[in-house]
Amino acid sequence: MVFRLDKGGSMELCMIGVRGHNGYVFEGLKRRQDIRVVGVSAGTEEDDGTKLVTSCSQFGQSPRLYGDYLKMLDELKPDIVSVAGPFEMHAEISIQAMQRGIHVFCEKPVAISLEELARMRKVHAESRVHLTAMLGMRYDPAFYTAREKVRNGAIGTVRLISTRKSYKLGTRPAYYTQRSSYGGTIPWVGSHSIDWIPWFSGEKFRSVYAAHTTLYNNGLGELEVSAMCHFTLTDDVFASASIDYLRPGNAPTHGDNRIRVAGIDGVIEVREGNVYLINNDTEGEECVPASCSRQILEDFVDQIEGGTEPLLTAEDAFIGAEACLLARQSADECRIVEFGQTD
Amino acid sequence: MVFRLDKGGSMELCMIGVRGHNGYVFEGLKRRQDIRVVGVSAGTEEDDGTKLVTSCSQFGQSPRLYGDYLKMLDELKPDIVSVAGPFEMHAEISIQAMQRGIHVFCEKPVAISLEELARMRKVHAESRVHLTAMLGMRYDPAFYTAREKVRNGAIGTVRLISTRKSYKLGTRPAYYTQRSSYGGTIPWVGSHSIDWIPWFSGEKFRSVYAAHTTLYNNGLGELEVSAMCHFTLTDDVFASASIDYLRPGNAPTHGDNRIRVAGIDGVIEVREGNVYLINNDTEGEECVPASCSRQILEDFVDQIEGGTEPLLTAEDAFIGAEACLLARQSADECRIVEFGQTD
Repeated sequence: MVFRLDKGGSMELCMIGVRGHNGYVFEGLKRRQDIRVVGVSAGTEEDDGTKLVTSCSQFGQSPRLYGDYLKMLDELKPDIVSVAGPFEMHAEISIQAMQRGIHVFCEKPVAISLEELARMRKVHAESRVHLTAMLGMRYDPAFYTAREKVRNGAIGTVRLISTRKSYKLGTRPAYYTQRSSYGGTIPWVGSHSIDWIPWFSGEKFRSVYAAHTTLYNNGLGELEVSAMCHFTLTDDVFASASIDYLRPGNAPTHGDNRIRVAGIDGVIEVREGNVYLINNDTEGEECVPASCSRQILEDFVDQIEGGTEPLLTAEDAFIGAEACLLARQSADECRIVEFGQTD
Repeated sequence: MVFRLDKGGSMELCMIGVRGHNGYVFEGLKRRQDIRVVGVSAGTEEDDGTKLVTSCSQFGQSPRLYGDYLKMLDELKPDIVSVAGPFEMHAEISIQAMQRGIHVFCEKPVAISLEELARMRKVHAESRVHLTAMLGMRYDPAFYTAREKVRNGAIGTVRLISTRKSYKLGTRPAYYTQRSSYGGTIPWVGSHSIDWIPWFSGEKFRSVYAAHTTLYNNGLGELEVSAMCHFTLTDDVFASASIDYLRPGNAPTHGDNRIRVAGIDGVIEVREGNVYLINNDTEGEECVPASCSRQILEDFVDQIEGGTEPLLTAEDAFIGAEACLLARQSADECRIVEFGQTD
């Protein structure tokens, strides 16, 4: 699909929602000054959309504020919509956009139920639009660099992966306390780390066994504070995801994001923003300089224009969401869940 | 049980087997110079017992060499026997010793089948001897220190544990290539890390889901190169064990042994021999000085004499072995295995 030049060379974007990582959009705006934010909406009456207008103004954008996001899409007919509204609306908003031929840059997970996800996949397949998820950690310098190393053979065939996502709990808005509006900690906190697993290994998910618990959640209702997932992939690759809100309040960063990937020729790790590699060419464990010049929204726009092969396809976004939701199901039902049963 | 003073004040020990970590015995001999090694045996005709005599001589010991270990036990009637013979004989040798009233210091895992383990537990319960396993990593300065910190409340109630044991594959004797003589990689490599889980958390194992594979094992028959275990414990504590032989040959140490324990008030980690703690009393993550003045054989002898509460009881040794064997069963059968079904 080619960028519509009939809008005077600018790409028009609408933003929906104030609950997700709109920072990815704003970072992209800095790099692609030809993008114009034409409209914004909170996506729900519960949230205040004016803060989106304020944030946009800091980037020289003057979007029109809408209460009704559908009205906005119909009136403004943007090229792209970013979706970071109520988590339970990601799928529906994305579907509405895709049905209008609008490209979708959606917060992860793109759906919080398997039913919505299936519908989203179907609508996407029938449309001609591009979609991606805000799995921006693929663009994190350390994770990007580590994955490039793996892709270039630094550790040989991947065999075993351990991942960690640990967040500070802090205080959370009420929508985090209900599964119906939050989706669960495995999907919300775990999305990135679960996404890394097929990305680093090149293998496909086959089954998952997971556990999660709401114990010690400081009265936050249905919010799970700790979870552990165990994935089996093709070629007998095994991967774990340790997910929690147990990071102490005084930690230097909000999140402790780690991966260790062991292959037949070496081991690579990301911890505290650094990449560590050991293989038969290194002197013991070496710290690898990390960088990533790409940006997730910029890449997505480039993809729409027929340029860059993105780091993250729509299928990757769907697979990542499916893996989260099947892991959540496994944890809810205390059983091993196989992939590929729901399609 | 009180140390038999009728042997002129010395504690008499026999050593059986050359396949395990006899270093724990030799280190203990340095500290307890009143221990006399009176006899040694390879425990099997396949192995050469003379190397035990040679090693003992370096510690000023002149044991008698036996081909038949039972004959040795019957003739010498030692107070203690160390068992590090063929892995598949650990249980039988230990049982023979216990039935003769001899205390047992046994290589881990103490059994490589659930049937043997059940028999061993029964004989131990009916005897009046002490038994422990060579789970010497409880005495490692970093792990010991980290666990003391946890026991003293540095991270509050434990919620989530991730462990890692990664070894160099190198070349392996033929007995590693068959399950019947090796026992499997989860029990052999994973024993220590699986033992840490109840030790750090104070919780009991409830179920395990695990996976292991012989893929990419360099022709080493039935030896599994990578494995992942996921344990659920009481109080919804979850724990993973990542186990592999993927450590590159040029790594500075044979093993990469790690743990991360997250509690409601902090997180503690052991990596590369150091202990890192973060809680609301630390300035970000702090490195905690690590030390352990205790030694596993010395502790065991002290326990026999009615002294020190050991770091590791017979029950701990049995629980550790059971957890390894149930994890192996889970991996073999691709199903969740519950604890407490076999007793």
